[in-house]
Amino acid sequence: MPTIAVDVMGSDMGPEELIVGIRQALVSDKSDYEIIVVGDDRIISPMLMRQGVLKDRRVKVYSASQVIEMDEKPLQAIKTKRDASMIRAIELVKIGTADAVLSCGNTGAMMAGGTIRLRTIDGIERPALGTVIPGKVKNFVMIDVGAAPDPKPESLVDNAILGANYAHVALGVKNPRVGLLSNGTEDGKGNMLVQTAHRLFKAQEGVINYGGLIEGFGLFDGEFDVVVCDGFTGNVVLKSLESSIRMFKDILKEEIMRSWVYKLGMFIASGAFKNLKKRLPIDKYAGAPLLGLNGLVVKAHGSSNRKQIAGAIHITLRCLRKRMQERIKEDVARLNEIVAQNKASAIERERQLEVEES
Amino acid sequence: MPTIAVDVMGSDMGPEELIVGIRQALVSDKSDYEIIVVGDDRIISPMLMRQGVLKDRRVKVYSASQVIEMDEKPLQAIKTKRDASMIRAIELVKIGTADAVLSCGNTGAMMAGGTIRLRTIDGIERPALGTVIPGKVKNFVMIDVGAAPDPKPESLVDNAILGANYAHVALGVKNPRVGLLSNGTEDGKGNMLVQTAHRLFKAQEGVINYGGLIEGFGLFDGEFDVVVCDGFTGNVVLKSLESSIRMFKDILKEEIMRSWVYKLGMFIASGAFKNLKKRLPIDKYAGAPLLGLNGLVVKAHGSSNRKQIAGAIHITLRCLRKRMQERIKEDVARLNEIVAQNKASAIERERQLEVEES
Repeated sequence: MPTIAVDVMGSDMGPEELIVGIRQALVSDKSDYEIIVVGDDRIISPMLMRQGVLKDRRVKVYSASQVIEMDEKPLQAIKTKRDASMIRAIELVKIGTADAVLSCGNTGAMMAGGTIRLRTIDGIERPALGTVIPGKVKNFVMIDVGAAPDPKPESLVDNAILGANYAHVALGVKNPRVGLLSNGTEDGKGNMLVQTAHRLFKAQEGVINYGGLIEGFGLFDGEFDVVVCDGFTGNVVLKSLESSIRMFKDILKEEIMRSWVYKLGMFIASGAFKNLKKRLPIDKYAGAPLLGLNGLVVKAHGSSNRKQIAGAIHITLRCLRKRMQERIKEDVARLNEIVAQNKASAIERERQLEVEES
Repeated sequence: MPTIAVDVMGSDMGPEELIVGIRQALVSDKSDYEIIVVGDDRIISPMLMRQGVLKDRRVKVYSASQVIEMDEKPLQAIKTKRDASMIRAIELVKIGTADAVLSCGNTGAMMAGGTIRLRTIDGIERPALGTVIPGKVKNFVMIDVGAAPDPKPESLVDNAILGANYAHVALGVKNPRVGLLSNGTEDGKGNMLVQTAHRLFKAQEGVINYGGLIEGFGLFDGEFDVVVCDGFTGNVVLKSLESSIRMFKDILKEEIMRSWVYKLGMFIASGAFKNLKKRLPIDKYAGAPLLGLNGLVVKAHGSSNRKQIAGAIHITLRCLRKRMQERIKEDVARLNEIVAQNKASAIERERQLEVEES
């Protein structure tokens, strides 16, 4: 039975919002699974009672007395707060009591804690944060959106394997097409990292379904199911997109509020805006898994509301039911040999090129 | 009298659209300046006649028989097409006949051609592409959006000087506040480039008005007048933003077209959308200067329409009238000593840190 340890502490919205989110998930999916609510029982017990969550036989509670706050330094917090809810939840995965951990807390602590406690899968050097972004024709996975700001080119190839498996589970795509994010699509475009990774990807033919470079202009056109990038670029792009959408919404709202005529017009056209929202299902994919670890670690936005938490639980369950972790391990192990071979020959070619150039 | 050489070839819209843009600029600004239209006279002469542009005494024509196409390899194109309109226009700046060049052509060729023919200002290693991005409260300059995908940390400090001067001219800000784009604002965030540049910036105190790290979430909040980044990240962010806006527009249009009720509502509310557009004046800042060269080189979008070309001419004129190039040179020369001193001591501290860490 799939079991998720949900850290309900350390989010911007407070524990009760997350507990309501858990209840929503339990109501909308009645199948067999278990939720272990992790948090300070002095704080969460009355909330669990109030929300009636404990009546559900699928809910367990695991008490942890400390909380890692959003502004704490990750490594220090992990060292000093041994009984932090987030760390306890990760440990439940480590000892096999839970299959996955979900948290809205401090991203850095989650990445550091997950990596230190669960370790990366053999053959993967660093974990990567993947997230689903809504596109015009179809949605796509962007990976890495913040785990490793300075990856090696080889890690981008690993990201492709991780992202393709997540796209398979989250989006239901059979043989996900992978693109590499760049500042242009012609050969020779990209920074040094992308140029080297592009050559490594091309040497992977048949292993990863690599479709080539993709620039920002093409991001939402549906050409790729997985867009691979370094964690710095991915993070900046994702957050910039989020804030530009917020800006447009805010300005439009302000302008509409200026006149009852505009308000009337918007009321009449509101169905079109609801459909727009439906076509860009952001809540549904609110959880972003930290992929490549021995255990599933899912990060949700610090400001996630109940709906987004329910969405994150559903996507985590889907990952567990579709055996994503096992698939990744199988893929990495099965591909490792070919990958290593290809990587070696590509790096050799790389060296020869450098020798020729110098 | 300020003189702009406008390369009317090699754009996506064809020469006539650009010539109409020139006419719009001439009509809306009747003051003293000169436009040299550069292009193949067999092609552009009938267009110039048809649009009545030659009647204006401020217009001259300079014929160039070749065109660098969008998909050509920049360096090869520059080498083989000696009589290309873009190169001829740059040469007009080099020999002092024109003060600035404006082109919608091949960006790579323009950057390479500009750098090779005009050379960088003493003390600046590489030019950077700056552009104005509309924000919620105020607009800001983002630099570099595509010239140098792998800059040194020191070049990001140069970008701050270039960007601050452009912000001064384009946005009218007296002492522009500079931010460094990062994946988080806490100390320790950023990739290696940003972390080192952040330390260099802090050592500049009093030289550049440095306000610290800025993440994607804060991009449109008006905290900074200049956002500095490497040319890879800037390019990806800018293009991603453009394509997300296009996606939202397209989907909304599709949804509205589904029902006459929605169309009616949007018609009634259309004033609010017009005001939204006014508050985000994208056309006005359609030109992006390649800063740091001995001569002003302005790149406009390959698909620029007449309105955007007129906007790019106006902004180029403002740069010339406000003596931006001279100001940059003065700033760089005046600051170079302090910068060099600060840089040296910061790099020394950097080394000591590395020694301590190892």
